[in-house]
Amino acid sequence: MIKVAVLGYGTVGSGVVEVIEKNQAMVNKKAGEELEIAYILDLREFPGDPYEDKVVHDVNVILEDPDVKIVCETMGGVGAAYQFTKAALERGKSVCTSNKELVAKYGPELLQTAREHACNYLFEASVGGGIPIIRPLNYSLTSEKIEAITGILNGTTNYILTKMEREGADFDEVLKKAQEKGYAERNPEADVEGHDACRKIAILSSLMMGKNVDSEKIKTEGITKITPADFEYAKASGRTIKLLARAKALDENTLQAMVAPAMISRENPLAMVNDVFNAVLVTGNMLGDSMYYGRGAGKLPTASAVVSDVIDCARHQGKVIMCFWDKEEAVLADSSKSASAFYLRAKAGSQEAVKAVIPGGRILELPGRDEDFAYFTPVLEEGAFEKICEGLGDLILGRIRLDA
Amino acid sequence: MIKVAVLGYGTVGSGVVEVIEKNQAMVNKKAGEELEIAYILDLREFPGDPYEDKVVHDVNVILEDPDVKIVCETMGGVGAAYQFTKAALERGKSVCTSNKELVAKYGPELLQTAREHACNYLFEASVGGGIPIIRPLNYSLTSEKIEAITGILNGTTNYILTKMEREGADFDEVLKKAQEKGYAERNPEADVEGHDACRKIAILSSLMMGKNVDSEKIKTEGITKITPADFEYAKASGRTIKLLARAKALDENTLQAMVAPAMISRENPLAMVNDVFNAVLVTGNMLGDSMYYGRGAGKLPTASAVVSDVIDCARHQGKVIMCFWDKEEAVLADSSKSASAFYLRAKAGSQEAVKAVIPGGRILELPGRDEDFAYFTPVLEEGAFEKICEGLGDLILGRIRLDA
Repeated sequence: MIKVAVLGYGTVGSGVVEVIEKNQAMVNKKAGEELEIAYILDLREFPGDPYEDKVVHDVNVILEDPDVKIVCETMGGVGAAYQFTKAALERGKSVCTSNKELVAKYGPELLQTAREHACNYLFEASVGGGIPIIRPLNYSLTSEKIEAITGILNGTTNYILTKMEREGADFDEVLKKAQEKGYAERNPEADVEGHDACRKIAILSSLMMGKNVDSEKIKTEGITKITPADFEYAKASGRTIKLLARAKALDENTLQAMVAPAMISRENPLAMVNDVFNAVLVTGNMLGDSMYYGRGAGKLPTASAVVSDVIDCARHQGKVIMCFWDKEEAVLADSSKSASAFYLRAKAGSQEAVKAVIPGGRILELPGRDEDFAYFTPVLEEGAFEKICEGLGDLILGRIRLDA
Repeated sequence: MIKVAVLGYGTVGSGVVEVIEKNQAMVNKKAGEELEIAYILDLREFPGDPYEDKVVHDVNVILEDPDVKIVCETMGGVGAAYQFTKAALERGKSVCTSNKELVAKYGPELLQTAREHACNYLFEASVGGGIPIIRPLNYSLTSEKIEAITGILNGTTNYILTKMEREGADFDEVLKKAQEKGYAERNPEADVEGHDACRKIAILSSLMMGKNVDSEKIKTEGITKITPADFEYAKASGRTIKLLARAKALDENTLQAMVAPAMISRENPLAMVNDVFNAVLVTGNMLGDSMYYGRGAGKLPTASAVVSDVIDCARHQGKVIMCFWDKEEAVLADSSKSASAFYLRAKAGSQEAVKAVIPGGRILELPGRDEDFAYFTPVLEEGAFEKICEGLGDLILGRIRLDA
């Protein structure tokens, strides 16, 4: 019997309890031992809840119980979550988390603490919700040099973009509906400005490099400037628009990384990832592209990933599971030097002006759209392109990278 | 240092050597120890090959070398491959294989032998080439009750169907071109009749059930009867046609399993899996659908999966990696009782006759197609549908299951 504690009885935490309860026989069989929810840490009381008597308010009850071998951190944030995680690991208790913010910020430190105390810090649920992606990177693609990772890593923005495309609706209008349905937070900034996706690609690219990638240094653009007009031009050119989080290894120490909307070909496997679904496309030097697709959020999918980590910890008691993510910082290449082709939407009448400063591209005009046109540029350096756009001033109505 | 032997220096075997050589630093780091290709078993000589001096013709040289801890079986077939695998496992040497025929036929027995000798029999490369799917099922989706698995598991047939759709070409014509390009074998029966996909779904469904699923009992239909006309109707109804291998758990002992072409909605994530790519869609009771996509065949992708198994064996020396696949036979439900909606293509003029015997369906007539029409039936039992079709005789020109 292994005692498990859950820190935070919110959406994911209560999901963890539900998964362990509903799939009890399967979970115990796979863990090789019976798992028991011994404690649930929360500030609130839960009168009438079947686990009411497991609720404690003092983390020390958990930390001081030597029979608790595995702790699920489903609190979120980087304050108490960090302290409790650190304290649990220092006592040799393995920690499984869904907290991407904490993993992105303190991943290598907490992994190091776990190693020093012969336990594990696992974070499958921190990226892609229930999609197995951390474990495939750490356990499956071990014979590959990973060259690039590109993901649709945020369900809220993918839902909004899917709706905008299907309904021809404005960003603001779709966001409002998404908030009403609970698909977007009341304060949607972390999602729509790309910060959530940024933390996740920082985690994935750290695993790709084996070194730490600082999420705060990754260039990040959100989707607030995307318009229905952009979707019209995308459609007319056989493309769609997705918020992509990308990382590309340039050498052993250096990578490019960016979160930004991209206009991608309908032939790209990421193009069919719609609604709240997430997907991660991994490019290895032997395998080429492989993709992992599923529900990137939600109570049970996320909890399922936490519980798969719990099972992994139960199977590896006293043994450190390999995870290459050193404290050493990976170098982020100057994003102004990275190259891309771009889609530009510009004011009607400025065709010649645009072509004059960016020669070699292709104009697309759509019947019925008299106010603007699209221009697909050749590949340009980001910095140079930025300057050209500044020069064109308010002739430019929108711009999106084309899939590189 | 761990000595590795490769049995069979053909496409996959030479790929294994290439992956270990090209990604040497990464492979050794992940394995935690240096891997050395010590022997290559083949009947042929390879003069001039850099590994020429590693080639041996007698398997006993390998079996009797106590330093060989890991054997890659890339021979194929169920004769010598079975004997050599069994003998290696009995000597405590782990075996990693790409041989789906052997795994489908002797999986549980060889897993048992491995367990008895504290070593491992791993077969990531036997399904989906380089796509990680065995390990995600065994290590990642451990907290899930797997309810269903649906896959595009054969690259040759998927390539042919993709070409037929895009070019409006006949099966025979596309097959001939695929053979010329090396995408189809000279004797294509195992692929185009669905037998290859059948072995793979037998392996996946055995892991889903934890019990043995006999591939020979799985109802299997190939793609030879699919015509360009079927693709026309598929397109007009927002669908495409794929060869699907499916398994669905009915209870702890019983499953439905089938390999057959299916007309699937463009919204189905499997619809975008084109050319030689493979994908596996797994439905869990907590996570819902997750999908694993990539190159289902080819020298380096397949070899990459074999080498990931080698690394796993290196990490787990003397330790048995959990794999639930008992000898006990799972029960395959009577396929004549399983239900599906169907697409029927029937001779023009027989609309009323078809509707009379299968009421409640929908007729689709396409301009320019005067010789036939399509009929989309309601959900029917397979056995009952079969009888109705017999009754209609040669009025029926084609029939394909609609995605269930």
